[in-house]
Amino acid sequence: MTIKDEFHFIDKIKQTKNRQPQLVEGIGDDAALYKAKPDYLEIVCADTMAEGVHFLKDVSSPVDIGYKALAVNISDVAAMGGVPKYYLVTIAVPKNWSEEELVEIYAGMDEIASFYSMDLIGGDTVSTSDKLVITVTVIGEVQRDKQRLRKDARPGDSVFVTGTIGDSAAGLQILLGNLSVDEDNASAFLVNRHKRPMPQVKAAQLMSFAERISLNDISDGLASELNELCEASCVKMIIEKDRVPLSDSLRSLNFEQLDEWILYGGEDFELVGTVPPSAFDLLQKKCTDEGISLTKIGHVEAGPSEVLLIHNGKQTKLKKSGFNHFK
Amino acid sequence: MTIKDEFHFIDKIKQTKNRQPQLVEGIGDDAALYKAKPDYLEIVCADTMAEGVHFLKDVSSPVDIGYKALAVNISDVAAMGGVPKYYLVTIAVPKNWSEEELVEIYAGMDEIASFYSMDLIGGDTVSTSDKLVITVTVIGEVQRDKQRLRKDARPGDSVFVTGTIGDSAAGLQILLGNLSVDEDNASAFLVNRHKRPMPQVKAAQLMSFAERISLNDISDGLASELNELCEASCVKMIIEKDRVPLSDSLRSLNFEQLDEWILYGGEDFELVGTVPPSAFDLLQKKCTDEGISLTKIGHVEAGPSEVLLIHNGKQTKLKKSGFNHFK
Repeated sequence: MTIKDEFHFIDKIKQTKNRQPQLVEGIGDDAALYKAKPDYLEIVCADTMAEGVHFLKDVSSPVDIGYKALAVNISDVAAMGGVPKYYLVTIAVPKNWSEEELVEIYAGMDEIASFYSMDLIGGDTVSTSDKLVITVTVIGEVQRDKQRLRKDARPGDSVFVTGTIGDSAAGLQILLGNLSVDEDNASAFLVNRHKRPMPQVKAAQLMSFAERISLNDISDGLASELNELCEASCVKMIIEKDRVPLSDSLRSLNFEQLDEWILYGGEDFELVGTVPPSAFDLLQKKCTDEGISLTKIGHVEAGPSEVLLIHNGKQTKLKKSGFNHFK
Repeated sequence: MTIKDEFHFIDKIKQTKNRQPQLVEGIGDDAALYKAKPDYLEIVCADTMAEGVHFLKDVSSPVDIGYKALAVNISDVAAMGGVPKYYLVTIAVPKNWSEEELVEIYAGMDEIASFYSMDLIGGDTVSTSDKLVITVTVIGEVQRDKQRLRKDARPGDSVFVTGTIGDSAAGLQILLGNLSVDEDNASAFLVNRHKRPMPQVKAAQLMSFAERISLNDISDGLASELNELCEASCVKMIIEKDRVPLSDSLRSLNFEQLDEWILYGGEDFELVGTVPPSAFDLLQKKCTDEGISLTKIGHVEAGPSEVLLIHNGKQTKLKKSGFNHFK
């Protein structure tokens, strides 16, 4: 791609007005400026998606690619218990991408950004050969002492997940042509779960009443995220496989690789965490009242850092391996 | 490149301890957390460097590439009047880069990061085909009402630059084999100015006494940066070419393209700005006392946004075009 006029391009992707009242300078100077709120902590994360590894040009539209590149970072902010505020985007673009496609990538990001009143405050666009690489940095905030860390799981805690698990991996297989689903609605649902993950920012906010919660988002797969919580907290988890919540669409598949997608598939961008059992019922009620499902899938025990899966009376250790994209 | 064990790799690049006392969580959870200082503004910027466009593997070492990728972002923070605090790094790495080379890129970043007591607080490493792409996000801070914007130039102001101009462009031509310099010291100096730019953070701090300063860093070339200041401030600038400070090494070249490098070369990462004449002498003295040269190269007038260069009694309009890397 060649951007004929960089300033003209920036005009195309620039917001017409700022959404965050604390933003002092957005795009246009050497860097952006914002006022942080007292009694809050700033949250920062950055993730990269590379063409051919995280997405395929003939499978995902530019709008979907942009949407997801931002969504995965918002999910990280949610997993810290916070809300997203600002984002920066850098793109290295090869010649076979047009300026119009690039504008659509930004439109996809703006779609989810506007939902959260986030501001695009900076970035860079450069040319490269071969494959498009997009990096998104997100800045958010969380009230002090309400940050949610992986290391805060304790023996006796209930283990929970939001939403349903495994949909995104099934959706990817449909997109790649490896899985054919007779029922159109189920197929569309699963593909949408892969292309348009909805970060659980609201659920994380509903958890703010709880004194202590450990939290992770499901990017690399349930097994991997549970293992991370156990390692960071030095605890053991007992997970009951039949409790892991599945969507009707996924359940309808009855496919032999179903278990693999549920445990190792990843990219559902749901939240997984632990909470003292005394707080679980209230947490679940708060979520249900807002239309968010939250399910207990197991509990935490003292012991070596490991995740044990119980199914049909048998116990197996879940390995840490996660999502391998298109490998 | 294939990173055999991501956790092992992170251990290699992770700092042994935090440098910023306000950092709450660095690398290791879903995102980083830090406390912002009251009465300060947060500064954020992100820049991307792509192999083949911004650097060549056979010309720059991995350490130099890492150093520069962070330095150019620190320079943007300096151009806002701020100091850098944290950085995040995402790298998309093709197979022909080894894990050792990747560790060296991070070592190059750590070299300049430790100079400023900056913490590496996050990022991502993914594989890609063909060319390496590195994105660095830097977060800094500036005291409220001391941020330095491009739009703050006023008629009557003195126009200044720090350091010397054009060295980096000459250094690049030496690296590319387009320019041979007899004197070894001069050659090494110019190449070093290209590979290892030193952001003018200190100079920006010495400006903090001034009520009003407009400021830019020289990434795209002096002509381009001056035009940006004029456009943002709706003023005209008169620049005297003979006042633009040159290093002895550059002056010794006597090469026909010298003027082009000085005006359009870019990547010197010096600061260029304007200050009320009543404050210029004190600003210059403060810098000189710290061993930093700061030179008046012209003045600001009311009028249409344009930059006029005076040389040998003739006046020419400087166009906005800037640095084109390897094109």
